[in-house]
Amino acid sequence: ELSFDPKEHQHLRYNPLRDTWVLVSAHRMKRPWSGQVEKDKEDQVPQHDPNNPLCPGNTRANGEVNPDYNNTFVFENDFPALQPNAPDPGFNQHPLFQSKAARGVCKVMCFHPWSDVTLPLMTLPDIIKVIDKWAELMVDLGSTYPWVQIFENKGAMMGCSNPHPHCQVWASNFLPNEASLSDRCQREYLKTHGEPLLLQYAKMEAERQERVVVQNADWLAVVPYWATWPFQTLLLPRRHVQRLTNLTAQEREGLASIMKRLLTKYDNLFQISFPYSTGWHGAPTGPYLKEDQSHWQLHAHYYPPLLRSATVRKFMVGYEMLAQEQRDLTPEQAAERLRNLPEDHYKTRKT
Amino acid sequence: ELSFDPKEHQHLRYNPLRDTWVLVSAHRMKRPWSGQVEKDKEDQVPQHDPNNPLCPGNTRANGEVNPDYNNTFVFENDFPALQPNAPDPGFNQHPLFQSKAARGVCKVMCFHPWSDVTLPLMTLPDIIKVIDKWAELMVDLGSTYPWVQIFENKGAMMGCSNPHPHCQVWASNFLPNEASLSDRCQREYLKTHGEPLLLQYAKMEAERQERVVVQNADWLAVVPYWATWPFQTLLLPRRHVQRLTNLTAQEREGLASIMKRLLTKYDNLFQISFPYSTGWHGAPTGPYLKEDQSHWQLHAHYYPPLLRSATVRKFMVGYEMLAQEQRDLTPEQAAERLRNLPEDHYKTRKT
Ligand SMILES: O=P(O)(O)O[C@H]1O[C@H](CO)[C@@H](O)[C@H](O)[C@H]1O
Ligand SMILES: O=P(O)(O)O[C@H]1O[C@H](CO)[C@@H](O)[C@H](O)[C@H]1O
Repeated sequence: ELSFDPKEHQHLRYNPLRDTWVLVSAHRMKRPWSGQVEKDKEDQVPQHDPNNPLCPGNTRANGEVNPDYNNTFVFENDFPALQPNAPDPGFNQHPLFQSKAARGVCKVMCFHPWSDVTLPLMTLPDIIKVIDKWAELMVDLGSTYPWVQIFENKGAMMGCSNPHPHCQVWASNFLPNEASLSDRCQREYLKTHGEPLLLQYAKMEAERQERVVVQNADWLAVVPYWATWPFQTLLLPRRHVQRLTNLTAQEREGLASIMKRLLTKYDNLFQISFPYSTGWHGAPTGPYLKEDQSHWQLHAHYYPPLLRSATVRKFMVGYEMLAQEQRDLTPEQAAERLRNLPEDHYKTRKT
Repeated sequence: ELSFDPKEHQHLRYNPLRDTWVLVSAHRMKRPWSGQVEKDKEDQVPQHDPNNPLCPGNTRANGEVNPDYNNTFVFENDFPALQPNAPDPGFNQHPLFQSKAARGVCKVMCFHPWSDVTLPLMTLPDIIKVIDKWAELMVDLGSTYPWVQIFENKGAMMGCSNPHPHCQVWASNFLPNEASLSDRCQREYLKTHGEPLLLQYAKMEAERQERVVVQNADWLAVVPYWATWPFQTLLLPRRHVQRLTNLTAQEREGLASIMKRLLTKYDNLFQISFPYSTGWHGAPTGPYLKEDQSHWQLHAHYYPPLLRSATVRKFMVGYEMLAQEQRDLTPEQAAERLRNLPEDHYKTRKT
């Protein structure tokens, strides 16, 4: 029989954080692509746009005027999916028609006063201010809400409707699906194996190196063994850290630096401002602050859609939606490509 | 306190087929959209394109020449994600680095010799031929493979790279994630409630009518109570049917008719050939053919991406990927809009 080569032979890989499998079919990269291509020209974004509701000094939909902010700026989403006081849909429901109250708040956080920068183009001190503000929001909203989801949709391809660098923070009175799934998987892993899942994983990836993209004293960014998106990465602290709020000043500096390096590589891959959705997962908050959550390890997921070039994305469609996610190159191939890219940004490179 | 109105007040709904929740925030439709818009002009597709590898008489990538087919035509995918003889990745794996052999076949099935038709524009006898061929493939591939996934990606927005009307059939030696999840949910429901989940659900929706889009003697299409995509539908037989292969001739006729009506309404919604991914779920096959699978009820899912118009889609991105799916109109609102649309196709309507 043939000997197994992950680059040539399709196989399944297990995602221990979600208890699911991904189909890896690296030989699929050979197929020609004649489907949808995305816009390849980047829009020229002005540093300040008087009509952009996210810029300093401008007026938003609700009539409020933004302050003349210098670094980060947080405000309530003007069209929130979660509001604090929605009434309860009621009880005595049939098992096939169950609903529950959903309460929360949605905030928008600008990273910088200028519209024409992104995180990898910002200075380290400015990125540290973003991290500090994330931690501050986690303290504030996390004091009562069990889950605070910090996430960023970057690029039009990822449904981002405003080019100004920003993320969102949605806090809810419930644990969302992905949070409870990850909670269950990490809890069971600690119980069975005696060590937090992602702490053990970070150690092993640091030893093996083959999926590492960037690393420093406190952090590691890898293309996880079970990645579904072509250039998906997982950003992990090396120390056991349960929440963003527990990061030391040194770890925040290290985080700013590794984010800048990772996101610069992303932009350099196809020489485009790389689209993605990203977000932080850490131990739940609110009532859970009083419970033992030592199975949790803080981490960020990066889910970028591009596959072959700046214009050809991976579509997670029919088979993926109805059966199982499928990827077209191995995580090791993706990690190697990212690892070998320069760490100076193509937009500011001196040639 | 305010009384609960699902159109005004966000809430969570339970999906009993996947054991997950969806966040329904209908008031979000009020937010303005300045993000990515899709192409609004439909490409003119010729009836026969000498360069399209799916048309009758043309030569495919591997040098094979298609027959001059008259209705359906099935061939092996020239770039398959699953092949029959991939070697095993081996045993003794660490729990964080688990892989498994994946074996299978990928087939492509053309619906019609012409490139410029779609299912809703085909005649009932021609749609019945598609259904018969699906059943035939289920018998063939299902005799050995535990899961045979029939799915269709329609439209460039859904990653479809060829306008010729076709679907795909991927058979695998494993139960994909979505199949095992659905299997577990239906099994537990029957055990707890004494009736197959989707049989009971179809009865209750037929009584309530508020989420029904189209119906006939043997079938029902509803926007499920737990729909995530804006105009998602679930197509269900009224009788307890475990697999496509168990449909009677009358049920196949009824299916052809309800598919034509449902897909015509979809096209009429935004007067565009409506993009979606769809696929069939039924009791597993192969070794499972010998086991009791009475918890299973055959059904098809339709997942269309459009939200507001032919050019504005729903993005399932940051919050959805990292936390929980969220929808911007209630399933009842979506069902009502679809139900009220005419059943003659806008492209063939006599004005
Ligand atoms: O096989 P196709 O149509 O070329 O490809 C399409 O469907 C596949 C199965 O859902 C996906 O994996 C691909 O990303 C998509 O582009
Ligand atoms: O809130 P935004 O940026 O307008 O909207 C974007 O992110 C949301 C949260 O992931 C999604 O629900 C929307 O579909 C997407 O367009």
